[in-house]
Amino acid sequence: MPVTRYLEVAHKEALPQAIQALGRPCVIKSASFGYDGKGQVRIDPETDLGSVWQSMGGELAILEAFVDFQREISVVIARGFDGAMAMYVPVENQHRNHILDTTIAPARITPAIAVKAEAIARHIAQEIKLIGLLAVEMFVTRDGDVLVNELAPRPHNSGHWTIDACTTSQFEQFVRAVCGLPLGSPERHSDAVMKNLIGDDVRDWRAFLGEPGAKLHLYGKTEIRPGRKMGHVTRLTAKSS
Amino acid sequence: MPVTRYLEVAHKEALPQAIQALGRPCVIKSASFGYDGKGQVRIDPETDLGSVWQSMGGELAILEAFVDFQREISVVIARGFDGAMAMYVPVENQHRNHILDTTIAPARITPAIAVKAEAIARHIAQEIKLIGLLAVEMFVTRDGDVLVNELAPRPHNSGHWTIDACTTSQFEQFVRAVCGLPLGSPERHSDAVMKNLIGDDVRDWRAFLGEPGAKLHLYGKTEIRPGRKMGHVTRLTAKSS
Repeated sequence: MPVTRYLEVAHKEALPQAIQALGRPCVIKSASFGYDGKGQVRIDPETDLGSVWQSMGGELAILEAFVDFQREISVVIARGFDGAMAMYVPVENQHRNHILDTTIAPARITPAIAVKAEAIARHIAQEIKLIGLLAVEMFVTRDGDVLVNELAPRPHNSGHWTIDACTTSQFEQFVRAVCGLPLGSPERHSDAVMKNLIGDDVRDWRAFLGEPGAKLHLYGKTEIRPGRKMGHVTRLTAKSS
Repeated sequence: MPVTRYLEVAHKEALPQAIQALGRPCVIKSASFGYDGKGQVRIDPETDLGSVWQSMGGELAILEAFVDFQREISVVIARGFDGAMAMYVPVENQHRNHILDTTIAPARITPAIAVKAEAIARHIAQEIKLIGLLAVEMFVTRDGDVLVNELAPRPHNSGHWTIDACTTSQFEQFVRAVCGLPLGSPERHSDAVMKNLIGDDVRDWRAFLGEPGAKLHLYGKTEIRPGRKMGHVTRLTAKSS
């Protein structure tokens, strides 16, 4: 699968050489428990390597070449016991402070790039013998290459739009897949833009309720904290071709 | 409001005269607690009046002229504290053994009849100062008249299709209305045919799950009984104009 150039970094002493090989800027990522930008640091020309390595917790890390991508996209795919697969349309993801902010469904990409992304998702699902649901996050580079960035083998934030815009939501699809039921249609009946309500964003819930075509989801978290996903709102529009 | 011709029947002795006035066939209905054909009897030329009256439980009854209708339709309308209204498209209802069997959304009626039905629903909601949700059941006669048949001031079986085919379901709409929240869009994104799963129908649940575009709803009732509503399945298709 096409991915960013990367090197394993097992100890502090190996870091400078790896950086030399991939060039700055590059990104170091802890090999375990990373999410929402946690456990990763961008290494710029002026970055001090001592503190970087410390923030990795001394565990195995991966150093990745920096990708000056054009867009981030993802594909959510389901596969059942019988090998049947169902895939949602590729979507486009915009992050803010390393946290998913907005998902645009479908992604604003050419048909050729969509075909590439779908082929990658299908190939991975097949090779790992997926039973369940998998989100494949990808970068679209300025040259039109599609690079796999991250795999999330579960219902994914970038698939929340399917609740309101598709015949079968990613959650129902996941249950169907793991229960050996036939997969449902992943067809979308509407286009959608999903906006995460992060921290104080959620205070505007009443305004979202008043917007025609907006579907509000609150997660019932009682305490608002900066960076905490409190809910999301999906805005539906007529399906494009 | 246009309704079927009817007479109150307060005691057994008044029945023959009322039947004379409206002609046979006609339909007698208990004034309380009727639903799904319970508490109503059709009076044909050969029907014995003694047993009819007995089955009414001796309470106040209504005798209605028989309507040889072309279709049954219904409109579900919501109205909030502020008087704002939101209405779903008129739908067509087909009964089997006096129980709703199928709802077709939208109803196969002319625009002129749809306008009549919507005006009736809006007028009733306003006149009764509705706060909440109201289903207005109507007959479309062979002459193109629209007669009000029944009012159900609550989420209604003929509105279950809205769960899967509209931006806002009738249930969410009801909660919005009674909580003083803005009403949601009643816009439909798909056409739908809702089929009730009555009694043994529910045994086919697995087949419905395998149908693309079919949304299965099971009510979790543990015992199957003839005539018991066990669930429903909504089949979605692309929205007609």
